[in-house]
Amino acid sequence: MNYPNKKKAVKKQNNYANLGMTLESDIDLTNQYYLSHQIAVIHKKPTPIQVVDVSYPARNKAKIVEAYYRTPSTTDFNGLYKGRYIDFDAKETNSKTSFPFSNIHEHQIRHLSEIDAHGGIAFLIIGWSQYNEYYLITIKDLLPLWEAAKSGGRKSVAYSFFKTNCQLIPFGFQPRLDYLKVVDQLIQLHL
Amino acid sequence: MNYPNKKKAVKKQNNYANLGMTLESDIDLTNQYYLSHQIAVIHKKPTPIQVVDVSYPARNKAKIVEAYYRTPSTTDFNGLYKGRYIDFDAKETNSKTSFPFSNIHEHQIRHLSEIDAHGGIAFLIIGWSQYNEYYLITIKDLLPLWEAAKSGGRKSVAYSFFKTNCQLIPFGFQPRLDYLKVVDQLIQLHL
Repeated sequence: MNYPNKKKAVKKQNNYANLGMTLESDIDLTNQYYLSHQIAVIHKKPTPIQVVDVSYPARNKAKIVEAYYRTPSTTDFNGLYKGRYIDFDAKETNSKTSFPFSNIHEHQIRHLSEIDAHGGIAFLIIGWSQYNEYYLITIKDLLPLWEAAKSGGRKSVAYSFFKTNCQLIPFGFQPRLDYLKVVDQLIQLHL
Repeated sequence: MNYPNKKKAVKKQNNYANLGMTLESDIDLTNQYYLSHQIAVIHKKPTPIQVVDVSYPARNKAKIVEAYYRTPSTTDFNGLYKGRYIDFDAKETNSKTSFPFSNIHEHQIRHLSEIDAHGGIAFLIIGWSQYNEYYLITIKDLLPLWEAAKSGGRKSVAYSFFKTNCQLIPFGFQPRLDYLKVVDQLIQLHL
């Protein structure tokens, strides 16, 4: 039997799920490559979870039976590259025209600003799934746009802004998403 | 009625629980002080948890109903101080004479060694609850002892080693456990 609409809906859902996972797993693979080749030590932080109840069905194996996801207070990734502190988050958008600020938490912006103020390298990786393009945008570039949005300005960053002002991250086989190539340029420019 | 043995056992258990929480929460309070006084940006990483099953009893509120604690692949704390990458873990011992290596995971030692090799500042904070003393031991100092232990040598670090070779961390009201004072000395000595 043929249920075209139903099939389409399922397929779309799968695609969305993969998109989100792909960027994170591409970065994880990249970080594994950086670590095993002694290029950098950058890890994803665990997802923060509030544990409410734990049971002990077997020895030495606590089973969490009630817990909730918490809003992260910082970013997903941080680490060390050439003696420098690196801190970033990764976001993906399905839009062809703009990256909405609603995708970023305010405390993540605040955290990245603090990192920048203390001499770290702070940025976001924005994936444009419609174009298969990944851009690195520094908090220095993002912050003025964010503050303008808070004061009633545009609530998103145009794709054209990334095209014009941000560096495209090379995508390949190994490493998958070589964002440290862009970080190298930032270091050369003294950020 | 009087059950002296039972009472004693319960009291001891409570003390152990408090000891573990005290060091971690003292460090959390210290990190909050550092952050709010714009001294450093250092956070505790979330505890890694493997989520197996999630239910959705109410809108927008996922409830985790089966999950398990995972072994951390890195350390508990990392961040940024004076443009430098800081990475450490905190352990407490109830012993009066030695800190057993069984308190540290091998991958934590490996991680701290990688941080050291890439130009970060890597150490452990060891709390001696019997003395109310907290020492900072760098991975540079710890690694030879760890490797000797792996080759059949002593499976612990003597309290006297800390007394002689490591810096005592000042303990006070605010900040509670001022470990960056010791880090300052490490920076001056070029680690």
